[in-house]
Amino acid sequence: MKRTETPSGMEEITQDECLEILEQHSLGRIAIVVDGQPQIFPVNYAVNRRVIAFRTGEGTKIWYAPDSKVCFEIDEYKPSTGVGWSVMVQGVTVDATDSFDDVSWAARSTAPWPLAPGPKPYLVAIAPTKITGRRFQREA
Amino acid sequence: MKRTETPSGMEEITQDECLEILEQHSLGRIAIVVDGQPQIFPVNYAVNRRVIAFRTGEGTKIWYAPDSKVCFEIDEYKPSTGVGWSVMVQGVTVDATDSFDDVSWAARSTAPWPLAPGPKPYLVAIAPTKITGRRFQREA
Repeated sequence: MKRTETPSGMEEITQDECLEILEQHSLGRIAIVVDGQPQIFPVNYAVNRRVIAFRTGEGTKIWYAPDSKVCFEIDEYKPSTGVGWSVMVQGVTVDATDSFDDVSWAARSTAPWPLAPGPKPYLVAIAPTKITGRRFQREA
Repeated sequence: MKRTETPSGMEEITQDECLEILEQHSLGRIAIVVDGQPQIFPVNYAVNRRVIAFRTGEGTKIWYAPDSKVCFEIDEYKPSTGVGWSVMVQGVTVDATDSFDDVSWAARSTAPWPLAPGPKPYLVAIAPTKITGRRFQREA
């Protein structure tokens, strides 16, 4: 595993490992920009061929996310090990509910399982333009 | 405690309770818009008089956050209870490292403790314009 240590003591996570980490988790957050104001929403997601998919109902996510630049992020800090990491996906969203592009097809092969209640008829897909990750381990 | 149930089964968290929840935690995420592209970074924060403060080093957060619209978010889902919640703070940031405005003073009375390594000479403060929260409990 290639490790790139930055001057600050942060280790950069390779894109391949970022994708592995994304596949091992299911709860992340999407940032959407609404009239210049970013907003962050937790979502349960699934990954297929680099495409991140989540279900949503009527609201900000389906009104503003499609065809705009978004950011998706997962992170973790375990006090027991002192290890913290985050993976950030910058990308563009599409309403994959019933579109026929490749990203939408990839998204429809996933089965994201929303924990939050309420009808979620829409499937939103994020096509990544940049995937980055960082990790650190606190000294004991 | 006033509870507002939305049609979707989500309960809205009052602003006062959002502030209480923010005070009880220390790890959140900030979304910053860089040339139209939102980015999300985990930060260890502290709160004082509605002002959210975190320390940072050279990089995107100090280059792009000050004087721009940002979003700050914390969330949690506990499988053991089925309860999930999130608190979102929309606001404007200032470089509070050595400014004399009220927000910077409030920020400098906090002691956010960064878990991540590396020098973090800058103190960034978020002055909220809108604080919202949502909570749900999965049925057993």
